[in-house]
Amino acid sequence: MKKVSAEKLGRFVGDVLASCGVDSSGSEAVSQSLVQANLRGIDSHGVRLLPTYAESADKGGVNKHPKINVKQTFPSCCCVDADNGFGAAAGFRAIDECIKIAENQGIGIASVINSSHCGYMAAYTLRAAAKGYMAFSFTNTGSAMLSYNGTKKYIGTNPICFAAPREESDPFCVDLATTARTYNSVELARLTGSKLDEGHYADAQGEITTDPWKSAMLLPSGGHKGFALGMMVEVLCSTLSGMAFGPHTVPMYGPNSDPANKRQICQTYVVFRPDFCIPADQFKRSLQQMTDEVRSQPAHEGKHVMMPGDPEINFVVQRSQHGIPLDDSTWLELTKLGEKYGVLLPPIVSDQD
Amino acid sequence: MKKVSAEKLGRFVGDVLASCGVDSSGSEAVSQSLVQANLRGIDSHGVRLLPTYAESADKGGVNKHPKINVKQTFPSCCCVDADNGFGAAAGFRAIDECIKIAENQGIGIASVINSSHCGYMAAYTLRAAAKGYMAFSFTNTGSAMLSYNGTKKYIGTNPICFAAPREESDPFCVDLATTARTYNSVELARLTGSKLDEGHYADAQGEITTDPWKSAMLLPSGGHKGFALGMMVEVLCSTLSGMAFGPHTVPMYGPNSDPANKRQICQTYVVFRPDFCIPADQFKRSLQQMTDEVRSQPAHEGKHVMMPGDPEINFVVQRSQHGIPLDDSTWLELTKLGEKYGVLLPPIVSDQD
Repeated sequence: MKKVSAEKLGRFVGDVLASCGVDSSGSEAVSQSLVQANLRGIDSHGVRLLPTYAESADKGGVNKHPKINVKQTFPSCCCVDADNGFGAAAGFRAIDECIKIAENQGIGIASVINSSHCGYMAAYTLRAAAKGYMAFSFTNTGSAMLSYNGTKKYIGTNPICFAAPREESDPFCVDLATTARTYNSVELARLTGSKLDEGHYADAQGEITTDPWKSAMLLPSGGHKGFALGMMVEVLCSTLSGMAFGPHTVPMYGPNSDPANKRQICQTYVVFRPDFCIPADQFKRSLQQMTDEVRSQPAHEGKHVMMPGDPEINFVVQRSQHGIPLDDSTWLELTKLGEKYGVLLPPIVSDQD
Repeated sequence: MKKVSAEKLGRFVGDVLASCGVDSSGSEAVSQSLVQANLRGIDSHGVRLLPTYAESADKGGVNKHPKINVKQTFPSCCCVDADNGFGAAAGFRAIDECIKIAENQGIGIASVINSSHCGYMAAYTLRAAAKGYMAFSFTNTGSAMLSYNGTKKYIGTNPICFAAPREESDPFCVDLATTARTYNSVELARLTGSKLDEGHYADAQGEITTDPWKSAMLLPSGGHKGFALGMMVEVLCSTLSGMAFGPHTVPMYGPNSDPANKRQICQTYVVFRPDFCIPADQFKRSLQQMTDEVRSQPAHEGKHVMMPGDPEINFVVQRSQHGIPLDDSTWLELTKLGEKYGVLLPPIVSDQD
């Protein structure tokens, strides 16, 4: 495990993408989204994605110089055309447009069309929360979830993300896939030779499996409820924006993926003021009180009751101080990228093998 | 099981509440919400609630003549004061205000303060979907959910409801509690002497139980994910509106409930246009295509892949034709109410004991 500073890692990501020919808006947005994910402990959405991202930019799947176009179609709505650039660039732009709308109108919604993988959803909602707003982010993803009662997949891991500002603590943040688990856990189990936990994965025939080599689909979280929420996210993204849906989207990984293909997935963002009923200070104080009460609830032995997003807040404290740990496989990939694009690797602040 | 027509049952509910002194707006709204729940097969939120509702109106917990006040604080936001009347009356009013805002602004949000139990959430989102809009409804509820990792409850079953219009089929509708199960299943198991299904209920000490007589709390759906979504709903309702939250709300049932107490819970509604990126017709056609594809997916033997809300749509077809079945205990309660308020019971269209 090599540890590097968030700042230096961010610069490395930005420099690699810049060398790859990505414009500054795209390089900065992706760098910010990937490193924030690592900083918050969500390594599945961190710099481990950089090789895939760089390859997509290289091979034409992602437009390196998109002309992001914002069309305000109603006073509180806009349609953001990502022009097939990085989802992160369009995501920050869309959330900023929503914030601008919400400031005057109270609430704003933006759908992003012709987008790509947008990475760490919390990056966008947290930007709004840091400015004192409440926000939702939704994205559809490549087909991955075993349909409830079915033997095949249709929709993806379709996550829901929500954030709101608090008085003292970092913003409240809910960020979850509507599948019970993610593909990341399958990859990890393959690497470590361990079994998958029971009841959350299916093989290609739709039968439950704990064998990571047989796992081909992810079960919805909470059975029909996760399937319903995933379908809701699909409607909020692909149907609302008129893009491809479910299995018609272009996959990111697997035999049918191709870094030269535009992924055609999409995101929807909603931002609103917390002060249309009560003053903003009262809102933040009330959420802080709720936070303090939940955190001090009695727990089962050896456990703690936490607010959603608390593990991520703890990671930020640790990793800001001690650096972001990168596993050997990720480090190797970053080394190759550094060599290919002539960018120096971030200095190692600690190396514990 | 006695079966009665939806129309006659609705009239009975309205007449009982009118005799109880509830104004026409409240009687009609509650009647519509309860009977729609029964018609769609969600009997837990049907006329079985009428005795509790009538008692609250009788004892002062619910204001029979509320002056619902709508304050538009930003062009796309309003704060609806339910004046402690029935949650259903405020719910329909709030969704109508949101629709009015969304028509011109594209999206509208309303928080309802000083509200009460709002019953069947889908009644409100479906009203918006029937008019061609997409909608969310959220409500906090009395404390009921075992906190993740904890031994006590904090938030309630805090449901999420979402609806969107489709080309042919009835609107798409997601309607779910963020707990894995509801109290209704506990009551049913007590009545029938059966065990609860494994892993979804806890006793007063926070230990998992399958004994309906020991069940005191409900587990979140999908573990930490259901807890996170429930907390999100809590923030969207109580924190946003500045009302009591979590265990500070007034319970509806149990030793600490009192029909003379104002419940002080609250709801948040969001309505938006489906046509700010693409024409409305294209949206509806696309959602219809997705619906048709999902419904025809291969399923495990004896099962079907359904869209969220499909079971409810099937219930509407059956129950519109054959009547709404009422169990003996509900029928007895309605009989008592009819006698107390001098209202004739709806005629029985079929009686299968």
